Amino acid sequence: MNGSSFGTSFKITTFGESHGAALGVIVDGCPAGIPLSAEYIQTFLDRRKPGQNVYSTPRKENDTVEILSGVFEGSTTGTSIALLIRNEAQRSGDYSEIASYYRPGHADFTFDAKYGFRDYRGGGRSSGRETAARVAAGAVACALLDTLNIKVCAYAKSINEYVCFDTKEYLAERYSVEEIASMRDKSPLNMPDADASAKAEAYLQRLREEHNSAGGTIECVLTGLPAGLGDPVFEKFDARLAHAMLSIGAVKGFELGSGFEAALLTGTEQNDPFYTDEAGNIKKRTNRAGGVLGGMTDGSDVLFRVAVKPTPSVYAPQETVKQDGSAYTCQITGRHDPIIVSRAVVVVECMAALTAADALLSNLGSKLEHLKMIYGTEQ
Amino acid sequence: MNGSSFGTSFKITTFGESHGAALGVIVDGCPAGIPLSAEYIQTFLDRRKPGQNVYSTPRKENDTVEILSGVFEGSTTGTSIALLIRNEAQRSGDYSEIASYYRPGHADFTFDAKYGFRDYRGGGRSSGRETAARVAAGAVACALLDTLNIKVCAYAKSINEYVCFDTKEYLAERYSVEEIASMRDKSPLNMPDADASAKAEAYLQRLREEHNSAGGTIECVLTGLPAGLGDPVFEKFDARLAHAMLSIGAVKGFELGSGFEAALLTGTEQNDPFYTDEAGNIKKRTNRAGGVLGGMTDGSDVLFRVAVKPTPSVYAPQETVKQDGSAYTCQITGRHDPIIVSRAVVVVECMAALTAADALLSNLGSKLEHLKMIYGTEQ
Amino acid sequence: MNGSSFGTSFKITTFGESHGAALGVIVDGCPAGIPLSAEYIQTFLDRRKPGQNVYSTPRKENDTVEILSGVFEGSTTGTSIALLIRNEAQRSGDYSEIASYYRPGHADFTFDAKYGFRDYRGGGRSSGRETAARVAAGAVACALLDTLNIKVCAYAKSINEYVCFDTKEYLAERYSVEEIASMRDKSPLNMPDADASAKAEAYLQRLREEHNSAGGTIECVLTGLPAGLGDPVFEKFDARLAHAMLSIGAVKGFELGSGFEAALLTGTEQNDPFYTDEAGNIKKRTNRAGGVLGGMTDGSDVLFRVAVKPTPSVYAPQETVKQDGSAYTCQITGRHDPIIVSRAVVVVECMAALTAADALLSNLGSKLEHLKMIYGTEQ
Amino acid sequence: MNGSSFGTSFKITTFGESHGAALGVIVDGCPAGIPLSAEYIQTFLDRRKPGQNVYSTPRKENDTVEILSGVFEGSTTGTSIALLIRNEAQRSGDYSEIASYYRPGHADFTFDAKYGFRDYRGGGRSSGRETAARVAAGAVACALLDTLNIKVCAYAKSINEYVCFDTKEYLAERYSVEEIASMRDKSPLNMPDADASAKAEAYLQRLREEHNSAGGTIECVLTGLPAGLGDPVFEKFDARLAHAMLSIGAVKGFELGSGFEAALLTGTEQNDPFYTDEAGNIKKRTNRAGGVLGGMTDGSDVLFRVAVKPTPSVYAPQETVKQDGSAYTCQITGRHDPIIVSRAVVVVECMAALTAADALLSNLGSKLEHLKMIYGTEQ
Repeated sequence: MNGSSFGTSFKITTFGESHGAALGVIVDGCPAGIPLSAEYIQTFLDRRKPGQNVYSTPRKENDTVEILSGVFEGSTTGTSIALLIRNEAQRSGDYSEIASYYRPGHADFTFDAKYGFRDYRGGGRSSGRETAARVAAGAVACALLDTLNIKVCAYAKSINEYVCFDTKEYLAERYSVEEIASMRDKSPLNMPDADASAKAEAYLQRLREEHNSAGGTIECVLTGLPAGLGDPVFEKFDARLAHAMLSIGAVKGFELGSGFEAALLTGTEQNDPFYTDEAGNIKKRTNRAGGVLGGMTDGSDVLFRVAVKPTPSVYAPQETVKQDGSAYTCQITGRHDPIIVSRAVVVVECMAALTAADALLSNLGSKLEHLKMIYGTEQ
Repeated sequence: MNGSSFGTSFKITTFGESHGAALGVIVDGCPAGIPLSAEYIQTFLDRRKPGQNVYSTPRKENDTVEILSGVFEGSTTGTSIALLIRNEAQRSGDYSEIASYYRPGHADFTFDAKYGFRDYRGGGRSSGRETAARVAAGAVACALLDTLNIKVCAYAKSINEYVCFDTKEYLAERYSVEEIASMRDKSPLNMPDADASAKAEAYLQRLREEHNSAGGTIECVLTGLPAGLGDPVFEKFDARLAHAMLSIGAVKGFELGSGFEAALLTGTEQNDPFYTDEAGNIKKRTNRAGGVLGGMTDGSDVLFRVAVKPTPSVYAPQETVKQDGSAYTCQITGRHDPIIVSRAVVVVECMAALTAADALLSNLGSKLEHLKMIYGTEQ
Repeated sequence: MNGSSFGTSFKITTFGESHGAALGVIVDGCPAGIPLSAEYIQTFLDRRKPGQNVYSTPRKENDTVEILSGVFEGSTTGTSIALLIRNEAQRSGDYSEIASYYRPGHADFTFDAKYGFRDYRGGGRSSGRETAARVAAGAVACALLDTLNIKVCAYAKSINEYVCFDTKEYLAERYSVEEIASMRDKSPLNMPDADASAKAEAYLQRLREEHNSAGGTIECVLTGLPAGLGDPVFEKFDARLAHAMLSIGAVKGFELGSGFEAALLTGTEQNDPFYTDEAGNIKKRTNRAGGVLGGMTDGSDVLFRVAVKPTPSVYAPQETVKQDGSAYTCQITGRHDPIIVSRAVVVVECMAALTAADALLSNLGSKLEHLKMIYGTEQ
Repeated sequence: MNGSSFGTSFKITTFGESHGAALGVIVDGCPAGIPLSAEYIQTFLDRRKPGQNVYSTPRKENDTVEILSGVFEGSTTGTSIALLIRNEAQRSGDYSEIASYYRPGHADFTFDAKYGFRDYRGGGRSSGRETAARVAAGAVACALLDTLNIKVCAYAKSINEYVCFDTKEYLAERYSVEEIASMRDKSPLNMPDADASAKAEAYLQRLREEHNSAGGTIECVLTGLPAGLGDPVFEKFDARLAHAMLSIGAVKGFELGSGFEAALLTGTEQNDPFYTDEAGNIKKRTNRAGGVLGGMTDGSDVLFRVAVKPTPSVYAPQETVKQDGSAYTCQITGRHDPIIVSRAVVVVECMAALTAADALLSNLGSKLEHLKMIYGTEQ
């Protein structure tokens, strides 16, 4: 299969390996007339960029984006948008050792099983570096969402046992998107709670000395989505979101609204009562649904959470095998983040934005009224 | 969007509402030469059938399947397979009350938001009854998997706080697929642990008296999958599985292998060491990955878990609004399962089988060697 | 591949063999709110029905359609619409002879090559009968087009050398859609020119006596399409049309506007000059483009033509081979149309309608303005 | 819709405008293990390159291709292959005049109708230059076909009334692929008949003086395709080919085998008799089918023909309108090919190769036997 595309109406197709010439993406199906610049996209890439602090790999990559097509005089043209990010740090190093064995927790073994051989330089296509192209594409999706006043915000909710504000609640139920983003951006770990962030930093310092790594969770909220996005059966909004999230390398779990806790609730606890607010809008008193009912957005915030595994590249010696099956004790070298969670925050945000942009476009033909509105005025 | 299809190479498209004439599915892309009969498919539908015990709705539906096309002389022909299930219990009842208000936890409000109106009879397209078509399609996928010795087995792992064998482990790490299935089939709740099942039954009895309902978790294992299925970027095997699972109405969460616990582990704890067994096969000592590395199956069992919310149709009075926004206290009538988990077990199994069948077909062109093998021998 | 689907946004998936239990289709992605009834669909099927006159096979099939889902209280609901047509004339005849050899001009040989075996009863899935499902689906597309005042009209332009009004021009450049349809419906061969029709009838009578069959051409016009449908690169409106047409069994060629004659024209002859009419609309003085420029509709009529081969089932003895490769002189029995063209007219119309419906929906997101129009008014 | 992708299993997605920064393509789904180099791809691009002789635009473009991903140590890796072609001749010229009016025969008007505005520099996305990306992708498809001994060859069959060897037959029925290619490559117009080529050259010289342009036809042959490619209903091999061909800007018609002549033949004339050759292979005595029966390849050569319209950019004054609807007499400047046919030959070849590569991959799962062959040997 050609697994490098995501989305149906707003569709992206990515390319690029960790140590190849470049990474990039084609965004196809983006409406004409959206303001877009390389500078705007760059702000997203800069949030993902390595080497920003001690918790991320010191590999130096400026990750400068170039718009190759689909933008004219500052606006999207409606045709395919290509974005290019050159790899600067392609070292012609010696990969013969890493080429010969299978790193635990990595895709080396499965790549060989599928394709018969692999680009072993820095993980090739399965490197976390692949997500740079997703972030560039997600920036385009965010440019579209912005014009419709839809916001997406992700943040590290927990690192190991250090949880923001010691709460199981979604932070977005307490704080506005702007407040969370502001608190988050003060933390090198993208944790909106300064106290939890400080504790997690100390913990990561210890882990680093022990040649180990940590996992955590990321929460995300989408606000301003109209009700009715997503489709009732297989293309449920939450099913697409889950797909998007599990497609991120290190994600091991996804939950929406009450999520796994729903397994412990009763019907009367899980159901969100409807009411009409003063402005006459139908709302829900609680949001255990997480903003999706029957696969379609219900006009509330969409709230979800993902579990991120610890960085598999640890420096401690590990039991494994060579390609020929012989036993081997490997010891990974190079410099690797002791935590994936923090840099993955913007990736989660971008994949959520892409999911929402796609749903907005796919929903346009749900009613005959939409067609009459658009074709009526144009003729 | 046309949200009624699932799969790329092995693709299904479903139709049908709770109280319409019929439900059904077209399976397109199924290889020729697989033995298939209506009787075989019926065994899957019978496991989903309502009215089997006190914990499922007493609505009488025989759910008899008819094969309309794509099977000739007992084998699939390679062309599209259509399966039809007539609705027998279409009552011409009075739905005027239910039509006028939005049931909490249901898709009534979101259907109206998306389409401008809805088939209000029994939930229409968003009824749990829609899954009958998935089960029929899943049976075809299982027929394919059978020929390649691949097995899928799902079971209720927990209902509210009642957990099988009081373990957080996947049961498939202790028992064989056959053992689990045999234990499961003795429980009216599809719980492989007789003791936990008995306690959960008593609990459900109490809930029923309180006009309430319960949630729970389902675990699933796939054995015998070759390594290398799934694609490295967006079409990861686990991403497709997550999509499949969240597309089931009441599912609120998905985790693979260590799942949400991975957020609390270190790298050395999460990584599964590789070794070579006596037969010379490369294996993993543990399976925290859940059988997928970098989005591709690694030859181990695929292990995952989903969270299922409590039945939203509870008899207790609930706060809600009418279509015109006026406040309303609704009281749902009719007969509804106090638990979705148990009947959803076969749905989870079938969606997992469909995901695996699709991945098996999509992977056929991963190597040039495959093409040479197939086109070389045929010319 | 799963080749039984057509369309991207307005997508149909068909099933059914000539002598199986039933034929049918699922229409997915049809907007909610379109008036639809079985009676309406039946009028399309009746135009395709066999046994209507001496030029079509006397096989008796009422081809009665049943709506199984997706329509509620006389309107489409937005969810998948399933349409069922039972086969009535499944004869349990003796097919052992036909099963053993390859009919020239038929798909017997290629089916065996692809799938390893075939449903040999009446051509199975590759029977012309398969088009009944397309016509049922096309009726749904026409119901949508009707609401937007878009018309589709196809007719037999020529049978062998007998050409309507002895002109190479498209009839739609001389007559209105209503005039053509009215003239066409008076001819048993669907030829709008009574004189040409009479001559073609006499010719077919002679061919019948000679145990032979004839080919011809079908023209089609779409009126009322807004400008801008279709996409600039691979999904050009005319590329989709060509795909649709060549997917009809006996079609061997497709041309749009000046078509093959364009190869003999100069640039100044082929280019259509633009002008502004009295109402202020931008129009073209000629229509050699056939209503499509750069893959997008230009607001003129879309005009195209297809070549239809003669019925391959002729009664004359023919040279062929058996499945084992041994030489064989076959003599086809049963009763077959001496001409495919006439019954294919409604199939061409329906495939064109499906192409247009899909393009209308796919185009909804081409401008940001569309999204603001739809989501602005709903929030 | 996102119209920049072609193919299902072997899928390409292109980007780029005439005067933007670059053109390019992502090839997704290409099997691992195919030898591929930039030099090989360059040989295809060089055949399309402008400025090669007096019959093509003198715009200087080296069209140098760079492989950005998906190739490692000289072989495809199975992951997405990105190919980049920088635009060198981006002139910052004055386009204000061309921006203000609609060129007849061009997509200026329809672009504005669809997107509300357009990149008016040199046609933007609808420029013939867009096909450079198709050719680069087609080269990858040819690399795959080569390994399976499948050949594709296109050539100019006629320019205006000048027809190669004065025959209506396909040249591939008289000459081998190698002979045709060798004769073709001697002609600046890609016409395999030196005499016809000389006459056409003289004709084009006259047209050039008259500020006009010419159309023509291209024939194409595919040899070595296994029988059974393509799918019986909507995804017929010839339907996909027709789609591919009509997606090329200037193509106005497509025919396969006897094509439009089939409309004048009888059944006994059109049907190709089967026989068994001395090697025991089942063959056809004639090839009026053009190598496809019932949508699936029959093991004969695939033969088809397309009609190409004259270059719409002629220097003669033409009637048109400005964007505001006011009448305007335009006179196109710049330098344009007086004929599209010759440079389109390699584009036809590449689109045919992409169609074949996709069909080869999509067909892999047609039989259970294929799955057993591949998964049986790997476990």
